[in-house]
Amino acid sequence: MENIVKVFKGTGFSSLSAQEIEILENHLFCIDGKGMIVKRLAPSDSSYQSTLQAAKDEQKLIELKEGQYLLPGFIDLHIHAPQWAQSGTALDIPLYQWLNTYTFPLEAKFEDTAFAKKVYAHLVDTLLANGTTTGLYFATVHEEASYLLADICARKGQRGLVGKVVMDDAEQNPADYRDEDTESALADTERFIQRVKALQAETVQGVYPVVTPRFVPCCTDEALAGLGKLAEKYDVHVTSHCSESDWEHGYVKERFGKHDTQVLNDFGLLRDKSVMAHCNFLSDADAATFKETGTAIAHCPISNAYFANSVIPIKQFHEQGVEVGLGTDLSGGYDPSVYSAIRQAVISSRMLEDGVDTKKAPEERGTDHSRITVKEAFYFATVGGGESVRLPIGRLAEQYAFDAQVIDTTVAQASMPIFDENEPLEDIFQKLLYLTKRENIVSVWVQGKQINE
Amino acid sequence: MENIVKVFKGTGFSSLSAQEIEILENHLFCIDGKGMIVKRLAPSDSSYQSTLQAAKDEQKLIELKEGQYLLPGFIDLHIHAPQWAQSGTALDIPLYQWLNTYTFPLEAKFEDTAFAKKVYAHLVDTLLANGTTTGLYFATVHEEASYLLADICARKGQRGLVGKVVMDDAEQNPADYRDEDTESALADTERFIQRVKALQAETVQGVYPVVTPRFVPCCTDEALAGLGKLAEKYDVHVTSHCSESDWEHGYVKERFGKHDTQVLNDFGLLRDKSVMAHCNFLSDADAATFKETGTAIAHCPISNAYFANSVIPIKQFHEQGVEVGLGTDLSGGYDPSVYSAIRQAVISSRMLEDGVDTKKAPEERGTDHSRITVKEAFYFATVGGGESVRLPIGRLAEQYAFDAQVIDTTVAQASMPIFDENEPLEDIFQKLLYLTKRENIVSVWVQGKQINE
Repeated sequence: MENIVKVFKGTGFSSLSAQEIEILENHLFCIDGKGMIVKRLAPSDSSYQSTLQAAKDEQKLIELKEGQYLLPGFIDLHIHAPQWAQSGTALDIPLYQWLNTYTFPLEAKFEDTAFAKKVYAHLVDTLLANGTTTGLYFATVHEEASYLLADICARKGQRGLVGKVVMDDAEQNPADYRDEDTESALADTERFIQRVKALQAETVQGVYPVVTPRFVPCCTDEALAGLGKLAEKYDVHVTSHCSESDWEHGYVKERFGKHDTQVLNDFGLLRDKSVMAHCNFLSDADAATFKETGTAIAHCPISNAYFANSVIPIKQFHEQGVEVGLGTDLSGGYDPSVYSAIRQAVISSRMLEDGVDTKKAPEERGTDHSRITVKEAFYFATVGGGESVRLPIGRLAEQYAFDAQVIDTTVAQASMPIFDENEPLEDIFQKLLYLTKRENIVSVWVQGKQINE
Repeated sequence: MENIVKVFKGTGFSSLSAQEIEILENHLFCIDGKGMIVKRLAPSDSSYQSTLQAAKDEQKLIELKEGQYLLPGFIDLHIHAPQWAQSGTALDIPLYQWLNTYTFPLEAKFEDTAFAKKVYAHLVDTLLANGTTTGLYFATVHEEASYLLADICARKGQRGLVGKVVMDDAEQNPADYRDEDTESALADTERFIQRVKALQAETVQGVYPVVTPRFVPCCTDEALAGLGKLAEKYDVHVTSHCSESDWEHGYVKERFGKHDTQVLNDFGLLRDKSVMAHCNFLSDADAATFKETGTAIAHCPISNAYFANSVIPIKQFHEQGVEVGLGTDLSGGYDPSVYSAIRQAVISSRMLEDGVDTKKAPEERGTDHSRITVKEAFYFATVGGGESVRLPIGRLAEQYAFDAQVIDTTVAQASMPIFDENEPLEDIFQKLLYLTKRENIVSVWVQGKQINE
């Protein structure tokens, strides 16, 4: 027990594959000083009793109460941090107008770091309270405010992957909200990478700089090429938007005569640690490129209903071998909870499978073999997200970070409908995913450390 | 002030029409001993100051705090109360199998009134905590347990409309879960109506018996005809399911050679106080019948994603003059919150408008003029629901019952992203609808009385 600093005892759920969950009934999760799960023991394991006793003796045991369950912390692969200030509003116009009418003016305000601090601190607290232990963030074009976001993640204990957004094309972006020029966009990004890498060394859970061209329409060719080189030079994560809507997909086709995927790949932006949001209009060839390059899709089902003009065939892309995680896409999606993204991912996939138009005959209405189960959506929110960003997170398993949320099914006013003492754990798992409200999440742990203790 | 027992001071929101909300900034809402709003005063009204002063002097004032807002209580037009026990599970198979595999066996257990009491009490508490002040419930075939549900609503202060479910067809229903025969189904229903009417007299908020053939496939012609006559004799509410899925709609067409709507109407079941769930596959002629008879649609967007094979063109039916309210459809829908139904109603309507299949060109993908705004969904959840059941509820207006929820945007762990002291109330309204979580609902009032004080 020397290297073990905490032992959790309780029932947890973790994905084995997209189709299968492990039900870890009354398991012990032994955490070391670096916040890793170094040992996981089932009651049938020979060292279970001795480990349990030692944990008790050494006062290292944390025992879940009756009605409490452990899930991996969620990984939100697509968050526009500044847009948190307008979440729940501004959902009435299409993407292009939305950016220019609401979003760019709001993001411009983040030059003011005092304002940024207020919004970002509130957002990170909110996401943690909702069980999101890792977040992949777009900040704004401002280097200082972007660094501030990484710093807030570092201090609050969330695993943050943060991008200073690049929007350098003077003709495509508003005069008061863009990079000064291509050169400064690249220089700011490089300095940002260096600063966040330095900050990273000060944290247990890790914060990571991300190369972040907003999307192809906002960037010059030179910026895209330069960012591809920076990604390679520093071997950092890359994120952007890809083939999101009819308008955006069409714009790129017109400018380059090819799809976003090929453009991004040609500029060196599709790499092993790349995560592209939306990707609704990927062709099969695009999906193959994603698979080959190790690029993941951040599927954002709520936002897609407002801005993507379609439902992504996520089941198909995943079966083709593309990595998939989930994103809230605040504020294109209004809801900070990955639970809501899980639920909408299932619902949207069913609408793709069954179709929507009652005027059509059933066989012409939908697209067979499109729906995903809640287990698959859970997999995307945990294992899929972890693999997308190449970090050992998303499973309650050995050699993974102890990122976890404790769900209490019995809290006042939000207790779950569990009336059978012997309700199968398989059903409990489904109830956790469909019925957990914020207040059921009674504690959240990142890299072995409790948040908001 | 003699007839006034309470005066609320605060900012509220109420629908004027499906497109317009009233922003009632710092209004006074004066409630009489029967729980009705007898006077509503704006700060500019001449008697505002004197009424405010009198309320203070007479210790009748209840003042909302900074960051708190008043919304009408929500009306949930479609709840299967017994299914609460399986909410969040059993969402993997189509309607027909779902009923026989999971749902009928569960409902059969409600012969045991001790079990029924446990589930129903927990459900009514949960709905109230989520801001649902009026619920239209399907109970089970059991008269006693159905009456028990009405009694629980009566005691807990919720406005419950409760139906003993009729399923009398021996060939269509399981032997251990159906009415004994047609005669007893009708006799039980009539006695149930009489008992609930007697109970109604003991409550302030009202509880109401509802004539409830489960749906056409479960009932003999004789039962449907007999229920139509009972509805007329007692002038009570009627509810059922109508044209929900390809299978159900097709079954009725095969049995009767016509749509559910015409069948139900021919049996006298479409009346001024009728509410029919789902209605996805109504024809224009069916919708016209709904309008003529005063029958309302209970739109259940979450459940529809699992069981209705389509998205109902709700905007079109509403514009044709059909009354529309919202339903959670527990447990076909997993979520007890009408907020979630509001959000999904907007999302589903957008998917109908834009379409879902990325393989299709934009102009062939969707159905123009289908989407609804969050204001329209809010209207359905309040005014639409109230009009559907012909009760003076759903508005914060004079001559309406004071059914209300107080939303606190500032509660710990779930505070809303409001960073501008002067944020327009129009935006606050949208944030309330999109971002309210259970714990933001700090008090709930039905007919002037606070629940769970």
